[in-house]
Amino acid sequence: MSTSEIDIKIRAKALELIRTHFKKLVDELHRNQKLHLVFPKRTLSNTIYDQKTKMLLLGPDVQRRSFTDINEAKKFMQTLLMASIIYEALRNNEYPTIRDLYYRGKHTITYTSIDGKPVSENSWDEQRESDSVIRDLEVYLNILREDLLILSKEKGKVVGNLVIKSGNDIIDLSKMGHGAYAIEPTPDLIEFIDVDAEYVLVVEKDAVFQQLHRYGFWKKNKAVLITSAGQPDRATRRFVRRLSEEFKLPVYILCDSDPYGFYIYSVFKVGSITLSYESERLATPTAKFIGVTLTDIFGTEVFKEILTKPGVKETLEEVAKGASRIRSKEPYLSPEERKNFVIKAKLKDIERAVELVGYKVVEVCMESSEYRSKIKKKEGVSGYPWFLTPEWVREMCVFFYTLSKLEIEAITGKGLKFLAETYIPRKIETGDWIS
Amino acid sequence: MSTSEIDIKIRAKALELIRTHFKKLVDELHRNQKLHLVFPKRTLSNTIYDQKTKMLLLGPDVQRRSFTDINEAKKFMQTLLMASIIYEALRNNEYPTIRDLYYRGKHTITYTSIDGKPVSENSWDEQRESDSVIRDLEVYLNILREDLLILSKEKGKVVGNLVIKSGNDIIDLSKMGHGAYAIEPTPDLIEFIDVDAEYVLVVEKDAVFQQLHRYGFWKKNKAVLITSAGQPDRATRRFVRRLSEEFKLPVYILCDSDPYGFYIYSVFKVGSITLSYESERLATPTAKFIGVTLTDIFGTEVFKEILTKPGVKETLEEVAKGASRIRSKEPYLSPEERKNFVIKAKLKDIERAVELVGYKVVEVCMESSEYRSKIKKKEGVSGYPWFLTPEWVREMCVFFYTLSKLEIEAITGKGLKFLAETYIPRKIETGDWIS
Repeated sequence: MSTSEIDIKIRAKALELIRTHFKKLVDELHRNQKLHLVFPKRTLSNTIYDQKTKMLLLGPDVQRRSFTDINEAKKFMQTLLMASIIYEALRNNEYPTIRDLYYRGKHTITYTSIDGKPVSENSWDEQRESDSVIRDLEVYLNILREDLLILSKEKGKVVGNLVIKSGNDIIDLSKMGHGAYAIEPTPDLIEFIDVDAEYVLVVEKDAVFQQLHRYGFWKKNKAVLITSAGQPDRATRRFVRRLSEEFKLPVYILCDSDPYGFYIYSVFKVGSITLSYESERLATPTAKFIGVTLTDIFGTEVFKEILTKPGVKETLEEVAKGASRIRSKEPYLSPEERKNFVIKAKLKDIERAVELVGYKVVEVCMESSEYRSKIKKKEGVSGYPWFLTPEWVREMCVFFYTLSKLEIEAITGKGLKFLAETYIPRKIETGDWIS
Repeated sequence: MSTSEIDIKIRAKALELIRTHFKKLVDELHRNQKLHLVFPKRTLSNTIYDQKTKMLLLGPDVQRRSFTDINEAKKFMQTLLMASIIYEALRNNEYPTIRDLYYRGKHTITYTSIDGKPVSENSWDEQRESDSVIRDLEVYLNILREDLLILSKEKGKVVGNLVIKSGNDIIDLSKMGHGAYAIEPTPDLIEFIDVDAEYVLVVEKDAVFQQLHRYGFWKKNKAVLITSAGQPDRATRRFVRRLSEEFKLPVYILCDSDPYGFYIYSVFKVGSITLSYESERLATPTAKFIGVTLTDIFGTEVFKEILTKPGVKETLEEVAKGASRIRSKEPYLSPEERKNFVIKAKLKDIERAVELVGYKVVEVCMESSEYRSKIKKKEGVSGYPWFLTPEWVREMCVFFYTLSKLEIEAITGKGLKFLAETYIPRKIETGDWIS
């Protein structure tokens, strides 16, 4: 088999890291101490939005996992089992996936219980369990699993004036023809040889990426064009982050105009709520939401209309205060186009939107009584801090008021030329994004 | 905007094709004739499995769509509307997607009915309708929509000793580093400059593709390595077909060992049932299912065991007759590995399997009574002809008998080295595949 130099290097580093981190257990054994591991707690209550770095991070809580505690012994053993499987895989020049690791560790242990009965127990039954152990190890070792050469499927693609070194190859990402470069699962191992671009445009939808690529958008605009093909995977997020961090490139995210699109942007920007320990390396805090916004569809006039509704100004004081400073904007769609392109929001869209900005926005802005009684009020849902900005709340006001959503394809329905030569360039030129 | 020469050429060709095909309507108008279109019927009853070409094809039935027939007028107008939108997109150097085309044509027509009332009607309400019209046009024009420069999202990736020309670029697919080449949505426009490979290996799962790629599998084995990342899209199927047809490369498909994996293979090989008009250009009739087979998991002995069950020999006469000619095979998994890796089939797996080979196989082979009463007996489900071969029926006997399925990842769970250096090469060397 052929292995690239970088893989040989990273393998040695990962082996060393695991060895040093678990050697402490051997030392504890020698000293007759109780075996235990200590690492940051990966719970929701220990996930905090850090206002300074603008990222979701793990808080200060730690968790102890002790071999001699009956409640923790199984988890302790699972952690050791997984570490040893990963260690073996690294030694054997393997590239396991998290699914492999689940299979590799899956076995049944039989033993005799204290009351003399034979007992059998599985190392783990479902991948959910083994995945959780892998995450514990990432936190304990303070490393991303990709750097342990654990691979996964990848959806991200890129084209643009970039020359990279990946493995032993030098690849010019401006010479991909009509196809694209599929990002590797270990984007930290990419070496950027030459980057000649003014910004990064990330498109949620692969089909829109294909269109903009084919149209020559990135050439004309000196952009790096990337698609996450839906919810972004880790490699795509890391790739975007590296471009932002190492080359100070502005990053614009183009998504559908609905709460799911907004959340995709949010995963790129602040990280994922359940996997906040990754944010420090995967999130791009400077990412900007370029569209499609609700005010792109309806213009800014509608927001002034909403502000005259009873209770709105009082409830959304801060947002209302900023209203006078909003630059007036004509909608990008005509009333006729709105009629044909806009999709009516469904209950699940509204519920997702409530998760983003909390109840009070929907309570004062939604006029339709159709959904009012159906929205489930979950305890403690007050919105995500990074969505509680005047700009996002304003957008969500328009969303709840019009109950409308729009796909990016509706913009290309108006003409690919319109998207490529008017919409995106004008939004960037005029700074018409949400940050 | 920058357009490749090949796109300019294909655009002109597509415009000419649409013009000549619809000019007949203008001629009919001039001659005061009734306007109508005639093209092959795209119905299930007109979908036939052609034993000679081993593909799913459209049968001889045609359908007339007439403007003056009240039942056909709307469909007739939709067809013309879509043709004109595509024509305009071609003229304007656009690259629409089927979603765009839906939006572009979506509008409301208002008119006065014969009893004087105002009536309004939408061109179409759902994409299902506009997609169906696009398919009609593909059949009427005898062209794939890709050749009308209609784009779509793409999941397929490739690496290997291939040099291609796509757009204006020459791309060496053996120099993709740890990443891969994402196949373009119009694979017919690819020019193969140099192909130095002995076979094509298509892997259903992207993560397994990543592993084999990183391991250097395609280098060592002179293979072209492709992933469809699940159900294959049209571009991936066309790309595989072209490699098979133009370079006579054997094509091996590696899927999960379950009815869904078997069906993915079948889509590559014979085409898709609902879109049979595409098969002639997208299917690869010589494709071979390399695994994972049920006999890879259990060996061939289990089949002899099944043959001793009452009724099996009588019901599955032809399969039983061939049984003596089956080469004995040891299983690739040990009993211990089977215990840890094999997944119990669910009801939906069994129902899908029944669709593939019909009821009589499950009736005589399944021992478990758990599912027997639950399997829905749909009228006329007697299996797909291309699955009713002794080899497939034998595999499905083992499936129903053991009610087991296996993911490819279970094989890599045994070690990536095992998959790359033992399993795949041995299967190919010994001709142990299903054709």
